[in-house]
Amino acid sequence: MHIKRQDINRLHQIKRINLINSCSGYKSANLIGTISKEGNPNVAVFSSVTHLGSNPPTLGFILRPTTVPRDTYKNIKETGVFTINHIYEDILADAHHTSAKYPEEISEFDITNLESEYHDSCIAPFVKGSPVQLSMKFVEEYHIKSNDVLHIIAQIEDIYIDDNILEDDGFIDLAKGKVAAINGLDTYAVAKSNTRFEYQRPKENK
Amino acid sequence: MHIKRQDINRLHQIKRINLINSCSGYKSANLIGTISKEGNPNVAVFSSVTHLGSNPPTLGFILRPTTVPRDTYKNIKETGVFTINHIYEDILADAHHTSAKYPEEISEFDITNLESEYHDSCIAPFVKGSPVQLSMKFVEEYHIKSNDVLHIIAQIEDIYIDDNILEDDGFIDLAKGKVAAINGLDTYAVAKSNTRFEYQRPKENK
Repeated sequence: MHIKRQDINRLHQIKRINLINSCSGYKSANLIGTISKEGNPNVAVFSSVTHLGSNPPTLGFILRPTTVPRDTYKNIKETGVFTINHIYEDILADAHHTSAKYPEEISEFDITNLESEYHDSCIAPFVKGSPVQLSMKFVEEYHIKSNDVLHIIAQIEDIYIDDNILEDDGFIDLAKGKVAAINGLDTYAVAKSNTRFEYQRPKENK
Repeated sequence: MHIKRQDINRLHQIKRINLINSCSGYKSANLIGTISKEGNPNVAVFSSVTHLGSNPPTLGFILRPTTVPRDTYKNIKETGVFTINHIYEDILADAHHTSAKYPEEISEFDITNLESEYHDSCIAPFVKGSPVQLSMKFVEEYHIKSNDVLHIIAQIEDIYIDDNILEDDGFIDLAKGKVAAINGLDTYAVAKSNTRFEYQRPKENK
């Protein structure tokens, strides 16, 4: 089936956001934890956390500043820190519910069964039980002009990881941790197994 | 296990890139097809294609201009167009092999069993058999200063999709298409099933 740009533009909004959100492939499934300067914790689901580089260890994610989740952005700008927590099989429904729009004074930790926990000097909350938890330091932001979103750039400060899923060469086995991937806006897939390849060098002959 | 920033900096390079590449969660698994102004087709695996917005339909991805894959960047700048093709179960090994560094005049379509095909007026090659194929128009780029990578912003022009995996409400069922997700640098997961939730509204009571 061929869907042209004019067809995309003409789609009903719900159909368009379903289509465009699922057409880029699987997305990372993360809960971003923040805290306001008044001390209100916040946690929200994000599917745009992307690896930017390993040295310095850098990740990015996309925010729509003019819509939800405004709390996440405001809190990051106020405190300079946030946490990234992998969504895994046991918390799918609660994680997805954090996409509902609550007023700022209501914490998603009170509304759902997600539990917060705190590590070392990081003031932002982590999600208890998550097999990979990262504390992040805000570095810079870019306004993407063509569609008015923000690209937030941050560096990894600490990694807290279930040591059963960490291999000797640094590889984290997400399937073993029952970590989810997001398909579209509202669908979560948990892979049961995976295939690992080696570093690829050119073939001598075809 | 707690890995601190100083520990990350001290890791052997291979261990560091394995760890940091797998700690952000699952990544999209795409082959990006381009063509040079001389007509040499190129295809390369990317794991950073991210949804930026549905209106206009916008995706972004990350490039390291000073290392591989230079051909992809050069071709996009020369022609203004490229294709995104989902990696699926049957082509995992060939898709991953496109990460090997070949000279520009050698096409990955000749080296692997991946087959190119062309649709309508798009001059860049698509990957035959891929359940979701997108033709993309380059829009703008941002240089991320803190770690010297490029964020390429592009709009979707055409979607070519296996109609067995497209649902009535626009949702594309990636599990049904055996689409892969990438874990780290070299590992591909194909989910067999998924869980779909509804749009979330605030609960009346906890």
